[in-house]
Amino acid sequence: MALHAEVQNPAAQTARPMDRLAAMLSGDLGEVERLLAERAASPVATIPDLSSYLISAGGKRLRPILTLAAARAVGGRGGDAVAKLAAAVEFIHTATLLHDDVVDDSDLRRGKAAAKNVWGASASILVGDFLFARAFTLMTETRDLRILDILSRASCVIAEGEVRQLASLGKVDLPIPEYMAIVEAKTAALFEAAARAGACTATNDETISDAMGEYGRRLGRAFQIVDDLLDYGGLTSVIGKAVGDDFREGKLTLPVIYARESATGDDRKFWDRVMGEREQTESDLAHAIHLIRASGAADRTLEAANAEAAAAKAALARASRGAFHDELAGLADYCVSRAF
Amino acid sequence: MALHAEVQNPAAQTARPMDRLAAMLSGDLGEVERLLAERAASPVATIPDLSSYLISAGGKRLRPILTLAAARAVGGRGGDAVAKLAAAVEFIHTATLLHDDVVDDSDLRRGKAAAKNVWGASASILVGDFLFARAFTLMTETRDLRILDILSRASCVIAEGEVRQLASLGKVDLPIPEYMAIVEAKTAALFEAAARAGACTATNDETISDAMGEYGRRLGRAFQIVDDLLDYGGLTSVIGKAVGDDFREGKLTLPVIYARESATGDDRKFWDRVMGEREQTESDLAHAIHLIRASGAADRTLEAANAEAAAAKAALARASRGAFHDELAGLADYCVSRAF
Repeated sequence: MALHAEVQNPAAQTARPMDRLAAMLSGDLGEVERLLAERAASPVATIPDLSSYLISAGGKRLRPILTLAAARAVGGRGGDAVAKLAAAVEFIHTATLLHDDVVDDSDLRRGKAAAKNVWGASASILVGDFLFARAFTLMTETRDLRILDILSRASCVIAEGEVRQLASLGKVDLPIPEYMAIVEAKTAALFEAAARAGACTATNDETISDAMGEYGRRLGRAFQIVDDLLDYGGLTSVIGKAVGDDFREGKLTLPVIYARESATGDDRKFWDRVMGEREQTESDLAHAIHLIRASGAADRTLEAANAEAAAAKAALARASRGAFHDELAGLADYCVSRAF
Repeated sequence: MALHAEVQNPAAQTARPMDRLAAMLSGDLGEVERLLAERAASPVATIPDLSSYLISAGGKRLRPILTLAAARAVGGRGGDAVAKLAAAVEFIHTATLLHDDVVDDSDLRRGKAAAKNVWGASASILVGDFLFARAFTLMTETRDLRILDILSRASCVIAEGEVRQLASLGKVDLPIPEYMAIVEAKTAALFEAAARAGACTATNDETISDAMGEYGRRLGRAFQIVDDLLDYGGLTSVIGKAVGDDFREGKLTLPVIYARESATGDDRKFWDRVMGEREQTESDLAHAIHLIRASGAADRTLEAANAEAAAAKAALARASRGAFHDELAGLADYCVSRAF
């Protein structure tokens, strides 16, 4: 299929932009890791225990890397402020995950039991609140009101989007703009804020930080659209992996919107039953994946992600150049190539 | 009893400091109300619906009044920054209430069904997050980093204290310092931050804002200790009102700590059963209230609250004078006199 050829990096090479960025940023990332441990500390043991369960254990640090790389790409030289910003972004992300697990009643996160299943929903809510507050303390310490402005607004958008998603559950005819508003809120807003605020730590030129923000936003949209496709196994993967969370929770995402759009007869009835009425049997997920691939919905979803990645790279071209620029451009391709 | 005589205002007069402060601050409060409505707005209807359920409907606005009065008492003249701060403080308080209702699984709040019973726990969590983020946006708009510093730190203390309280549930021998740490976090920290940050909007003299912060902190401690006593009907009230929430939730508070401390034999076993093992029958609350009054624990609790109110007034004397000062001093007495 033509779409597959559009992506430059085949799957085997896709991790490289993240690995290379992590290596290039190892000094900055070390300071971020130190801050994450230091600021999740508390005499109340549940707080560091629960935080480190999520933070120490296996996050990809995608958002801190994006923050740090955005700063470096526009001429930044690391330092205290951008490290605190990157740690704050990771805390906000972690707080969101903790609350999401409770809201979605998810039992798994990053392949492990969700924190709420280990410490309880109450502890997850309150430790999320704590990390969110710590994020704002870290940002206040940067003494940069632009950072606080960008991240506090993004936090509003994120929470607003989560409520929007909650209200849309079981809505079988979710319009694509409403789906995109949810994507914008749940992922793109924090990517955008991280990239824009990162750039702000290194430049006062708003055309540059705006362009970097647009890069982050488009990258976030591409990332989330592909995530939503991966929840149905991506383009080709064998069924049986950790897929189907959105399906079981009745979350309407782009692969399903496209698949249902072109469906008639029994297929249309299938989607209305499993997503609208949320009456699902054991074999329904496999059938859903079959329909998404056979109807071309998977390819259309990838196409949408590709368009976002292209827009990300176009915005990036207005913001930066050099080694960090090149890796950030590669990161946009990486986001999409995960779908294969 | 001597303790009763110490409080100057009998119950009939106690509402006056709040009413007078509200009247004296009517212009400032009008702007705060406008901000609360404006900033709880969202195209996602659940957000204003749920927010206004708590915010429009019957809060006493104690914390915004404290914020505004603290500023006025040290020479402030109202204005945009202090109004935004006061609205932010109310949002943080409301966010905390929303999350508390989910954490405590309370069915009632301010005499109405808890928001989580109307909109669900998920909406309560996420709208709480939204209001918290909006609070930080408001504070960022003041362009005053001292405000952000004070309130972000207080937010950490509040969340940390909530986790501490969670971990202490069912602990029948809670030491008084641990109880006070919970009081400090769940109430005194925000009172202190509101008063200190309020003063900061009007003066750069840290000895004044520190003293005002200490006033707020002591006022908060007095307020919460009396609240905890009121949950057992206060000193004299007839049983049958909305009492017993802490009892049913197994929250150890000062009246119970004092009552159990002096209890022997069957009484000690009673406390260990109802609070430690949380095995409660219908008549246990009435018996608990009887023991708290008969053992002198109610009087001792009031004495502790009185000491905090006295400390509040002593701190206030170092910070301010004039009409707002006098009403704030009266407010400390009011907090305690609610117990009668």
